[in-house]
Amino acid sequence: MRELDILNIIGNTLDDSSYLGDDCAYLNDLGLYVTHDTLVEDIHFSLYTTDFYNLGRKAVSVNLSDLAAALSQPLYITVSLSVPKKINYASINELYRGINDVCNEHNVKVIGGDVTGSEKVMISVCAIGKKISDFNISRSYARKDYSIIIAGESGSSSAGLYALMNFLYCNESLKNAHINPKAFVKEALQAAKNINTDVAAMDTSDGLMDALYKIAVASKHSIHLDFSKIPINPEVIKFSEHNNLDYKDFVFWGGEDYSLVIILPDEALASLNSNSFITIGRVLNKDNNPAVFVDYGSHTEKITADVFEKKSFNHFYTQEKIN
Amino acid sequence: MRELDILNIIGNTLDDSSYLGDDCAYLNDLGLYVTHDTLVEDIHFSLYTTDFYNLGRKAVSVNLSDLAAALSQPLYITVSLSVPKKINYASINELYRGINDVCNEHNVKVIGGDVTGSEKVMISVCAIGKKISDFNISRSYARKDYSIIIAGESGSSSAGLYALMNFLYCNESLKNAHINPKAFVKEALQAAKNINTDVAAMDTSDGLMDALYKIAVASKHSIHLDFSKIPINPEVIKFSEHNNLDYKDFVFWGGEDYSLVIILPDEALASLNSNSFITIGRVLNKDNNPAVFVDYGSHTEKITADVFEKKSFNHFYTQEKIN
Repeated sequence: MRELDILNIIGNTLDDSSYLGDDCAYLNDLGLYVTHDTLVEDIHFSLYTTDFYNLGRKAVSVNLSDLAAALSQPLYITVSLSVPKKINYASINELYRGINDVCNEHNVKVIGGDVTGSEKVMISVCAIGKKISDFNISRSYARKDYSIIIAGESGSSSAGLYALMNFLYCNESLKNAHINPKAFVKEALQAAKNINTDVAAMDTSDGLMDALYKIAVASKHSIHLDFSKIPINPEVIKFSEHNNLDYKDFVFWGGEDYSLVIILPDEALASLNSNSFITIGRVLNKDNNPAVFVDYGSHTEKITADVFEKKSFNHFYTQEKIN
Repeated sequence: MRELDILNIIGNTLDDSSYLGDDCAYLNDLGLYVTHDTLVEDIHFSLYTTDFYNLGRKAVSVNLSDLAAALSQPLYITVSLSVPKKINYASINELYRGINDVCNEHNVKVIGGDVTGSEKVMISVCAIGKKISDFNISRSYARKDYSIIIAGESGSSSAGLYALMNFLYCNESLKNAHINPKAFVKEALQAAKNINTDVAAMDTSDGLMDALYKIAVASKHSIHLDFSKIPINPEVIKFSEHNNLDYKDFVFWGGEDYSLVIILPDEALASLNSNSFITIGRVLNKDNNPAVFVDYGSHTEKITADVFEKKSFNHFYTQEKIN
């Protein structure tokens, strides 16, 4: 069973599916963005590889990252927690300490939720953010000659996860990238305040290539990517070399970095004027079958629908093999 | 591990827990109510006793009932679904057909959510409602001589669940009360529009006595309940007699009826002027150790903290024994 097929069923079953599709829903009448993501034990995380404090942080951060992808101001979250009997009170205290800390860092309030029993730990977070930009954000807004900028690294989280799942040594920075990912909220707010025109934006929760290719398709424009410009933690390369892996697989196809990608015209880039973002590429011509061209200097690789379909990140049973 | 203890941990861990405690959180700056409840397989439901269509309906209804308990207008929901591989596409289609139908009945829009894998079916719904009343609602607003009114039956759902779990025959109306409970949204909106003073309100998701006793404690007033006035499905009595059970246990301590209790002054009751509500009791004197006095005509039973503690509904591992 594939996530995409299920999402299609949902879209076809609902009378109004107009809100679905982006990282979060925009409620025009309220000026609010809403997102709702769940972390399930042995799918999104394993109690063998994370602690409850960081689990609480991550459950919130992945949702704040969705709000950041809409360049919105996070305000409130609800938390629905399901836990087996084996979990003790101290663990729940640690979980909520993590939730509390990351919320404080971004001035977000925990307003409710519920707690129930379950066989596996499950944390469902709904996050509400406020639209503070006077322009619009959509995956379909990439246009010819727009610059592609990113805040955050690519590949660190998936390399860290690979190490954790296969009991391999890696630098702490990679494990931390997976266990306690950063939501680029401050960078998103900076963009919301300084940009003055419609832009495309997305987080890399399902991988860098996923974000770029989905924007290319939604905008019907091809994309040129300068590989040498992509922020990559040198430890990703070191780890890959030590284990005979291709580090580009982590950089392009690994998920859960939660870096922030924005695609915008040069004047907007100038008014943004931020050191938090790196320019990694440029939008090419309009194209009904768009591709992402990865320029390695020596040669260029073309990513099209068939390649994307084969390699793209599947959120479905990620960490099952651990048990 | 008890739900209450976990909720205490949460309250103590968060820097600001002021939003927690009621059925839903009120966001004063936005004029919105938010609630977030999750249904977990073999805790809140069993795939042996429900079908996916009704499961979808119930997952939405239990959240709409929380918004109804705030006399608010439901607007939007997000749905986070976790499903094991064994579930096929047809089941997911049925689930969302149920979600879609109950949303249409109340003009609610499904605006987002996510889908992930899991070992058990889990449906987490976050619901957003709008404050439409020009008065306030809180469990602590019950005052001397206020009338206690209720829309909906008590005991039907838990009697139906008991029959389902123990493979006992019962009338369909009891099973339906458990499998497809009604959220009293229309009755709540009617109250919001016609009442003009602060009232206490709550749904009976955790049982009739739970609602009355919690309001009594929050308001520091004792309550007089006229047992003969409580709307009870005769099938609850019939089922209990056939199986040598005390039907009062279902009526008072059984959960998931989602009936709507409002406690209000007589002038507000007059302006409400609705046939949907039945008057079942009256608020007594102020009391720092309040009790609920159940008047059976022949005699009166006094429900105090110790009785409540012993008998109150535990949402934690409800349906585990099925597996």
